Amino acid sequence: MTNKKIIMTSRPTGLPKESNFSLQEDSQASLNQGQIRLKTLWLSLDPYMRGRMSAAKSYTAGMNEGNVMTGEIIGKVTESESKKFPEGSIVLTRSGWQSEPVVGENEVSLVDPRIDPLSLALGTIGMPGLTAYFSLTRIGKPKKGETIVVSAGSGAVGATVGQIGKHLGCKVVGIAGSDEKVKYMVDDLNFDAGVNYKKETFKEDLKSSTAEGCDIYFDNVGGPVTDAVLDRLNTFSRVIVCGQISQYNNLKNEDGPRNFHKFLRNQAKLEGFIVYRWAEEYQEGIDFLLKLKESGFLKYRETVVEGIENAPEAFLKLFSGENFGKLLIKVAE
Amino acid sequence: MTNKKIIMTSRPTGLPKESNFSLQEDSQASLNQGQIRLKTLWLSLDPYMRGRMSAAKSYTAGMNEGNVMTGEIIGKVTESESKKFPEGSIVLTRSGWQSEPVVGENEVSLVDPRIDPLSLALGTIGMPGLTAYFSLTRIGKPKKGETIVVSAGSGAVGATVGQIGKHLGCKVVGIAGSDEKVKYMVDDLNFDAGVNYKKETFKEDLKSSTAEGCDIYFDNVGGPVTDAVLDRLNTFSRVIVCGQISQYNNLKNEDGPRNFHKFLRNQAKLEGFIVYRWAEEYQEGIDFLLKLKESGFLKYRETVVEGIENAPEAFLKLFSGENFGKLLIKVAE
Repeated sequence: MTNKKIIMTSRPTGLPKESNFSLQEDSQASLNQGQIRLKTLWLSLDPYMRGRMSAAKSYTAGMNEGNVMTGEIIGKVTESESKKFPEGSIVLTRSGWQSEPVVGENEVSLVDPRIDPLSLALGTIGMPGLTAYFSLTRIGKPKKGETIVVSAGSGAVGATVGQIGKHLGCKVVGIAGSDEKVKYMVDDLNFDAGVNYKKETFKEDLKSSTAEGCDIYFDNVGGPVTDAVLDRLNTFSRVIVCGQISQYNNLKNEDGPRNFHKFLRNQAKLEGFIVYRWAEEYQEGIDFLLKLKESGFLKYRETVVEGIENAPEAFLKLFSGENFGKLLIKVAE
Repeated sequence: MTNKKIIMTSRPTGLPKESNFSLQEDSQASLNQGQIRLKTLWLSLDPYMRGRMSAAKSYTAGMNEGNVMTGEIIGKVTESESKKFPEGSIVLTRSGWQSEPVVGENEVSLVDPRIDPLSLALGTIGMPGLTAYFSLTRIGKPKKGETIVVSAGSGAVGATVGQIGKHLGCKVVGIAGSDEKVKYMVDDLNFDAGVNYKKETFKEDLKSSTAEGCDIYFDNVGGPVTDAVLDRLNTFSRVIVCGQISQYNNLKNEDGPRNFHKFLRNQAKLEGFIVYRWAEEYQEGIDFLLKLKESGFLKYRETVVEGIENAPEAFLKLFSGENFGKLLIKVAE
């Protein structure tokens, strides 16, 4: 009986490499009162993890060299010294990249039993879906008929943003990095248009897809893609800054076109957020997303990699754009 | 009897030059029903005028070559075909840089008779003061004890922002371009600190003056000054984009450090605005500012240049930082 865990052995310089990680094994200790042992079923891989690997100031404490990689998992309780979570319970926790973690009962929550398949509790009906729901509705405040542009529109967050936008009666234009993803956004997710930012015609394609301009820009990426969208902003438009994945691996702060005058001229707003701001209201978001899924409206796509030892290699795909939809590690059946 | 007017004869390329303007004289036509003739007493010179001189998209239609320069004046009615504005009335209007304009009665409003001296109706208790009041309170929503940083802090808008901030119990740090202006902000306007952005020690001075970070940044300037303030943002801070004077004369969009990640990390907001958004509520702002002035709290400083023919030369001082406080042309007694 061993617990496999992935350690950040060194901080990445720029793009992370597999050599920044190592697999270690622990023999398992006995449980203290209030603790539970889990068998990890699913591990979520998300772009924000890159920020935690840095020494730079962030919204939560980062990791140090030698720490277990941070991350959210779904696990099954295999041994319990907690009355709240008996053996067999299915729970969510932030125990990081570990196969058989021991956690305290105050660090876990039960997975809503209506969530099926279970992996959705880490994706469309989990943190990424809640990110989409709360920030779009609370910051973006979309009105029927408005145009929403979403970058990384085929990703776990972006796909949910766009589909909620369609559900609310908006026009939705997704941006992604391949024709396959563009086709997916339009054909499967029902977006009004999709634009491939890797094409030379990106700016013209974006312009023609947003003939009425952009009322809400949901930004997952930053960089030149965002620069192009800012030229489409309408009066009183809103920019929701959810992620800046194009910038996370920069060795130093990148320069780009100054853009505050675009906000001035258009009386536009911008707001950054961290989803934990709405932590006490998560049930509202889960209920909304479950209802949308039950009505057949909410589609999703997962890229599943098997085996916790393959998590570092899989994680790197987030930055190359190779993954498609929500990226998950299947740790055990 | 002639009307002197300043025409924009050519659009400026970069910094405006006197050769972009010319003085013309009209002989005066008789009035139609509903029209009034004014003797201009005061002409306001403001940074936003540079934007109107450009062909670029802006929040209102720009000027064309051959048009009278845009601008707000205070005038006395010298001849009237309007029952609403009899001879002798003191009015505000946007008739531009003209000494004896003829305007329709629907284009003018009476100056609040409590405003004394009259020139304040173009400054601290006029458009710049209303800009400060509405944007600081409606967008910034300052809370007692918070730190407000204001760039161009000795200017017509900035000085009012800072003094309202002090009145509301905030810590106020002003940024300006000379030691004389810094001294004025601290000694006369009662700001907690002032920082000279032209000093080599600007970043360190800003940091030591904002030991508790920045909760509200009121941005009149953009560019490197703003870059420095963004590194001081606190969680849930607000950036009010009022002006970007450092950028107005650029021949092409300037590059600068990308900064959206700073808004993300700090869950910060940014909003651009045009004061006309609150046009129907101006009386509230005038009442507030008058009360503040009557209580001895609201200080102001004016730079007065005599003669409408000197308006072009004076206007250029807005961009060199040579003027101090509100810049006005005294057109007639």
